[in-house]
Amino acid sequence: MGREKSYNDFLRSCALERKSIVCFGIDPVLEKIPESITGDVTERIAKYFSSIIDASLASSSPSISALKPNHAYFAQYGFAGLLALEQLMNKYRGKLPIILDVKRGDIGASSDAYARECFGVWDADAITVSPYMGKDSLEPFLNYCNPPENRGVYVLCRTSNPGARDFQYLDTGDGKSRLFLEVAEKIAKWGPNGTGAVVGALDTEELEKILWLFYDSGKKIPLLVPGVGAQGGSASEVAHVLRQVSAPDMAIDRINSSSGIAYAYQKAGDPDFVKAALDEIAKLNKEIGKIE
Amino acid sequence: MGREKSYNDFLRSCALERKSIVCFGIDPVLEKIPESITGDVTERIAKYFSSIIDASLASSSPSISALKPNHAYFAQYGFAGLLALEQLMNKYRGKLPIILDVKRGDIGASSDAYARECFGVWDADAITVSPYMGKDSLEPFLNYCNPPENRGVYVLCRTSNPGARDFQYLDTGDGKSRLFLEVAEKIAKWGPNGTGAVVGALDTEELEKILWLFYDSGKKIPLLVPGVGAQGGSASEVAHVLRQVSAPDMAIDRINSSSGIAYAYQKAGDPDFVKAALDEIAKLNKEIGKIE
Repeated sequence: MGREKSYNDFLRSCALERKSIVCFGIDPVLEKIPESITGDVTERIAKYFSSIIDASLASSSPSISALKPNHAYFAQYGFAGLLALEQLMNKYRGKLPIILDVKRGDIGASSDAYARECFGVWDADAITVSPYMGKDSLEPFLNYCNPPENRGVYVLCRTSNPGARDFQYLDTGDGKSRLFLEVAEKIAKWGPNGTGAVVGALDTEELEKILWLFYDSGKKIPLLVPGVGAQGGSASEVAHVLRQVSAPDMAIDRINSSSGIAYAYQKAGDPDFVKAALDEIAKLNKEIGKIE
Repeated sequence: MGREKSYNDFLRSCALERKSIVCFGIDPVLEKIPESITGDVTERIAKYFSSIIDASLASSSPSISALKPNHAYFAQYGFAGLLALEQLMNKYRGKLPIILDVKRGDIGASSDAYARECFGVWDADAITVSPYMGKDSLEPFLNYCNPPENRGVYVLCRTSNPGARDFQYLDTGDGKSRLFLEVAEKIAKWGPNGTGAVVGALDTEELEKILWLFYDSGKKIPLLVPGVGAQGGSASEVAHVLRQVSAPDMAIDRINSSSGIAYAYQKAGDPDFVKAALDEIAKLNKEIGKIE
């Protein structure tokens, strides 16, 4: 079932309403969920993350304005984990943009099947995909950006992990470009409205290069920026770059933090995991500054 | 639970026993399963593919010597599809190498979770992974190649779809190399015994280049070659190249056909789908020639 408004509009209205571009990444790790959260695997995961999300939605803005469940962390617990994913998606669908982080990509017909999994079975607002196999592997996903589906698709461009340098930074075109810039160009060229890019927080110079490339294309391309918090990137530096290139478009971007929020209680040494998570969300929003 | 012998040994012994390097790709599409196969979604998928696999295993060799279920085609049917995957994997585990085609890849900790899904929950002998995110995204998978796990990991190198040319063929290193060759080099450099490569059947010149690169590395790197049959590649040409570079190592390679086998009955215009599939398998084995 498609969405009434475009994915970019959903991102924008939610950011303005919640006064935030913080995306909460949901990476369940049972060992990190306090023993006070009882029940079977499905219940413990669903309860833990619901507590944080509910408190965040109930708190006065700024709070969070997207959810990013990572399929890997649910699937590692088999059907019990996937049932928790289903419960969380059913509970928050329509309230916040839900980006199902799956990083899929296969030959055309197989990508078609993955698209049906993500937008049909899971009914996600948006997903992440990997570009290695090229245009015909991305198109089945990108087609869902058009009406009446109006979904979002974030293509991996420059990721936030150390290994990003292994292939994404390779010189291409006789040393005039780099692989991640070639991917960025194709995102701008191939993507309908609703197509976004995953660009890690760790290298703001490269982030700026990509942002200008998108800006010059004339398309509004929402960014999903992982790598702040636990991974070490700075939300304030990222926000500074986003604001510098195009402040009015910041409302369609999202800066993600996963375990930095979910397991903040461990770092804070405070058993009140909801309070620790809300404090971390508040800190991120403060670093990012006013969204308008 | 790990495997007693190395993945390469499993590949080799199974190929010699079954006198075949044909891998049967399992891509369930309900509309293509005849109405005579009754039951719910799970039952129809499990019954249909079991009929073909059982007949193939019961037939005199050469037959098939690996299975490659593609996660996308099961996941598109939600939990019912995943239950069919579970049933098929439980039925054939230990009888044939099972390559779970998932094309995963994420930052280290998330790849760890995917590895637990694939080798723990699904208990696959081998999987496919995507290299875009670099070394630390591949390592959690590659670590499973070592004892006591002894699993296999095929890294996407040169895929069989038209879009392979979009990024994989980009000139790198001042025009001295190409992205897929850089990936091939890293597979040879990073991969423990059991690490393989996905190299499509459509361009035998490039296939040969990759094979020589692997041969010169001194490592035995099993190839998974998709793209014959429905996708148009030639099994005899691929086999010719494999034999030319290293005939004694052919037994660790696999040439895959999915819908070309499973839905051969539609092309043959014969409702006996098992016979049509066995005929297609026999034809492939004949084109490939003797395995020794």
